[in-house]
Amino acid sequence: MIRETVERYRAYLEKLRAYSHATGLMRYDMNTVMPKGAGPIVGETFGVLSEVVYDMVTAPEVDAMQQEILAHRDEVDPAIVRTAELAAEERARIACIPKAEYVQYTVDQTTADQVWHEAKLKSDFQMFLPHLEKLIAAKKRFAKLYKPDAPVYDTLLDAYEKGLNTVTLDAFFQTVRERLVPVIAKIQKQPDISFLHRFYPIADQRRFSDYLMDVLGLDKNHCAIGETEHPFTTEFTKYDVRITTHYHEDAVELSMYSVIHEGGHATYERNIADGIAKLPIGKGVSMSVHEGQSRFFENIIGRSEPFIEAIFPKMRELFPAQLSDVAAHDVYVAVNKAEPSFIRTEADELTYALHVMVRYELEKRLFDGDLEAKDLPKEWNRLYKEYLGVDVPDDRRGVLQDSHWASGLFGYFPSYALGSAYGAQLIKRIEKEVDVWGSVRKGDLKPVVAWLTEHIYRFGCMKDPSVLMEEAFGAPFDPTYYTDYLTKKYSALYHLA
Amino acid sequence: MIRETVERYRAYLEKLRAYSHATGLMRYDMNTVMPKGAGPIVGETFGVLSEVVYDMVTAPEVDAMQQEILAHRDEVDPAIVRTAELAAEERARIACIPKAEYVQYTVDQTTADQVWHEAKLKSDFQMFLPHLEKLIAAKKRFAKLYKPDAPVYDTLLDAYEKGLNTVTLDAFFQTVRERLVPVIAKIQKQPDISFLHRFYPIADQRRFSDYLMDVLGLDKNHCAIGETEHPFTTEFTKYDVRITTHYHEDAVELSMYSVIHEGGHATYERNIADGIAKLPIGKGVSMSVHEGQSRFFENIIGRSEPFIEAIFPKMRELFPAQLSDVAAHDVYVAVNKAEPSFIRTEADELTYALHVMVRYELEKRLFDGDLEAKDLPKEWNRLYKEYLGVDVPDDRRGVLQDSHWASGLFGYFPSYALGSAYGAQLIKRIEKEVDVWGSVRKGDLKPVVAWLTEHIYRFGCMKDPSVLMEEAFGAPFDPTYYTDYLTKKYSALYHLA
Repeated sequence: MIRETVERYRAYLEKLRAYSHATGLMRYDMNTVMPKGAGPIVGETFGVLSEVVYDMVTAPEVDAMQQEILAHRDEVDPAIVRTAELAAEERARIACIPKAEYVQYTVDQTTADQVWHEAKLKSDFQMFLPHLEKLIAAKKRFAKLYKPDAPVYDTLLDAYEKGLNTVTLDAFFQTVRERLVPVIAKIQKQPDISFLHRFYPIADQRRFSDYLMDVLGLDKNHCAIGETEHPFTTEFTKYDVRITTHYHEDAVELSMYSVIHEGGHATYERNIADGIAKLPIGKGVSMSVHEGQSRFFENIIGRSEPFIEAIFPKMRELFPAQLSDVAAHDVYVAVNKAEPSFIRTEADELTYALHVMVRYELEKRLFDGDLEAKDLPKEWNRLYKEYLGVDVPDDRRGVLQDSHWASGLFGYFPSYALGSAYGAQLIKRIEKEVDVWGSVRKGDLKPVVAWLTEHIYRFGCMKDPSVLMEEAFGAPFDPTYYTDYLTKKYSALYHLA
Repeated sequence: MIRETVERYRAYLEKLRAYSHATGLMRYDMNTVMPKGAGPIVGETFGVLSEVVYDMVTAPEVDAMQQEILAHRDEVDPAIVRTAELAAEERARIACIPKAEYVQYTVDQTTADQVWHEAKLKSDFQMFLPHLEKLIAAKKRFAKLYKPDAPVYDTLLDAYEKGLNTVTLDAFFQTVRERLVPVIAKIQKQPDISFLHRFYPIADQRRFSDYLMDVLGLDKNHCAIGETEHPFTTEFTKYDVRITTHYHEDAVELSMYSVIHEGGHATYERNIADGIAKLPIGKGVSMSVHEGQSRFFENIIGRSEPFIEAIFPKMRELFPAQLSDVAAHDVYVAVNKAEPSFIRTEADELTYALHVMVRYELEKRLFDGDLEAKDLPKEWNRLYKEYLGVDVPDDRRGVLQDSHWASGLFGYFPSYALGSAYGAQLIKRIEKEVDVWGSVRKGDLKPVVAWLTEHIYRFGCMKDPSVLMEEAFGAPFDPTYYTDYLTKKYSALYHLA
C-alpha cells in the first residue's frame, strides 16, 4: 500500500525534476546566450510552464501522497520522507496564492529582470521602479497569505534560511558593526596593487580559470564555465553544474575570485550524495550555507597566503610579463586590500558585511516599515555614506547594482554576510581535524573538500540548515568567530595596533 | 460555438509552443554549453517532456477541436485552419505509435546523438552501430504503422518534404549525375588558395561574423551567434533565432560560409509574418525549402563575384596582413575551388550534390532494400570512390561525419541537393524582377530578401512546399536550372571548353 504510494510519488518527483530542469535551463539561457529581443516570448513560456508546475505541486493527489508518506515515515526511505516534508511546507507556501497571481508573478518577475538589465545600463531607476513595486507588492501579498500574523520580512527570510528572523540578524549585524567598523577606521596606508591592473589578455585569463577549476577539483565533464556580465552558478542536478565569470582585461583579480566563488557553489553541488541527487532535496540546503561555501573558498581559502603561494607559480607561467616584478606575498597583500567602496561584489572581505547591512536595513523597512520603493535610491546613498563613508556616484553603482531585487529575491542578501560568518567558524573546526594549510600550501584542496563533503555537502537538504551547521561547527553559531578572524587577519595585513 | 473552440485551440497551441520552446532549448544547450557528463539526465528530462507532448498532441479532445475547426474552415482564421490541418496530419503520424515506444525513441535518440559525438571523435563505427540500428528499426516500425503499404523511405521523405518520393529523386539525381560528372571530370588546373589558409585569429574572425550578419540584415537583438563543433541554426519563434559557427584559425573561408549558410536559415525564420509567428505554422515550411535558402545565400549570392567585391574592403580591413597580396577576384576564384573530397559540409558547390547522392542511395537501400546498418561503412566508401573518385581514409571522415542519422533524421539529406537546385531556379526568377547583382555589388541584400519575403518567407507553412515553390518559380520545378547554372559558372571559372 505505502510502497505503491512511494512509487507514484517517485514518478511525480521525476516529472517535477524534468520541469524544473527545463525552466532552470531557460533562466540560465536568458542570462547567457538568449538574444535580448526574445524576452517577451520567454516570459510567455515561463507563464505556461509555471502554471503547469503550480498545478502539479498544489494538486490534492500530491498532497494526499505526501501526507500518507509522512504518516508512514518509519516504513519509507528517509530521503523520500524528507522530500515529502519539505514539499508539504513548500506547498503550504504556494497553495495559498491564487493561481492566476502566481503565474502573473513569474511573468512579472521575468519582465522585471529584463528591464533591470537595461535600467542599470542607463542608470535609470525610474524605469525600473514600477516593476520593482509590482514585485514588492506581490511578495507582501504572498507572505501575508502564507503567514497573516508574522512580520512580512521574517517570512521572506525564512524562505531562504529556515528559522532566520530579524531578531537573530539585528544581533548579528550589531556585533559586526561594533567590532569591524573600528578596524576599518584604523586602516591608513594602502598597498600598491597596480600590478593587478596591467593588461591581462582574456585568452590567458580563460586558461587561468581552467587551472583554478582544476585546483578546486571541478570536473569539466559535469561543470561548464561561461561568461556573463554578472557571474553566477546554476545547476540542473549535480551532474550538470554551470558557473560563469566576467573577464576584465585590466583587473585580473575580478574573474579570478569570481571563478573561485562560483566554483565554491559548484563544489557544494557536485558533492551531494548520489543517492539523493535527483530528488528535490539533492541540492544545497539554504542560501546562507551556499554562500557560506562560496565565500569560504573565495576568501578564507582563496585569499589566504598559503593558497596564493600554491597558485603563484602558475600565475607567473600564465602572466610572465605582468608579474615579473612581483612576489607571491605581494599578490596576497594586493588581493586583500581593504577599502570602503560602493560595489558589493567587488568589496573586500573586511568591508563586505557593511554592504549587506545596507541592504538588510532597507529590506526590513521596505517590508515592515515605512520605506517606499521610490525612496530607495535616496536611502541607499544615505546608508552608504553612514556605514561606509562613501558617496554613491549614480544608481548604476548604487541601488541598481545587484540583480536580486529584480528577480524577486528579497531577504536573500543577509545570506551573504551570514555565510561569511559560517565560514570563519567552520575553518576553526576543520583545522582541528585536517592539516588545512599544509594541504592548501601544496595546492591540494582535497582534504578540505572531503571534510566539507562528509559534514555538509553530501546531506543536501536532509537536515535543516541550522541543525546542519551546528553539527558541523560542533557548537552553536557564534558570529564572533567571524569578527575575530577578520580583526586578526587585517590587523596583521595592515600592521594595526 | 466554433469561436469558443478556436479560443480553446489557441490556448492549447500556446501551451504546445511553450513545451516545444523548452525542449528545443534543451537540444540547443546540449549542442552548445552543456557539460557532456550531463547527457543521461537530459535524456531523462526529454523522456518526461516528450511523454507530456505525446499526450497533448494525441488527446482525443485536441483531435475533436481540430476536426471541428476543419469542418467549419470557412468561418475560421485561415492560419488556424492551416494549423489544424497540418496538426491532424502530424497527429495521424504520431498517434499510431504506442506511447511507450514514442517516449523510448526520444530517449534513444538523445543517447544515440551523444554516442555518435564520441564515436566520431574515436572514428569508431562499431560503438555507434547498435544505437544506429535501434533508430533505424524504430523509424521502420513507425513508418509501417503510419502507412503500412507505402515504401518506408517514401514515408520518411514525405515527412521532410510533403509529396517527395524516390521517383522524383531518382530522376533528379540522374540529371545531376549525367550533367555534372562530365564537368567535374574536365577540371584540371587548380587555383592557388593558400592565402585563405594563413593565420586568421579567431577574435578577428568573430568581428567578420558580426559584419556578415549585418550584411545579411540579421538583428542581433533577435539572432544570437555561438560556436559549436558543427554549425547549425535553431529557432524558438522568429523572435529568438540562434546560429552557430566553428572557427578554424587556418581556414578563414570555413566559418565565413558557415555564417552565411546559417544566416540564410535565420533570414528565412526572421521574415515569417508576425501574424503567424507564434503558431506551429510560423516556421520554414520544409527542409528542402530551408536548405534552399541557406544554400542560396551561401552559394548563389555568397560565392558570387559581386558579393565578394562588396565585402572585400571589409575583409582587407579585418585581415590586412593576410590579404595584402590578394585581389577580390582571387578570393572569388579561391572560394569556388571545386575538387572532389570526402567531407560534405566542406564540399564545393559543384561536387556537393554527389555527396548527397551517396547518402540518398544508402538510405534508400537501408529502408527498402537489402542494406544492413553494419555494412554502411563499406558501402559508403565504395560509393565515394565510384561517384567522387576519392578514397575515404577513416569512418570519422566517412560514414560518421554527419550528425543527421544520430538524430534519427533519415530522408533529410536529399533536401540539401533539392534545396540547391531550388536556388538556381529561383535566382532566374528574381533577376527578372529585381536588380539582384547591382544591389549585391553594393553589399545591399535588402531587395533580394524583400523579394524572398514577399514570395516565400512570410507564408511560413501556410502553403505546401511544392505549391509554394512552384508559385515562387512561376513554373514547375526543373532541375536543369541547377545543372545549367553550375555548368556555366564552373566552365567560366575553370576556362572549360
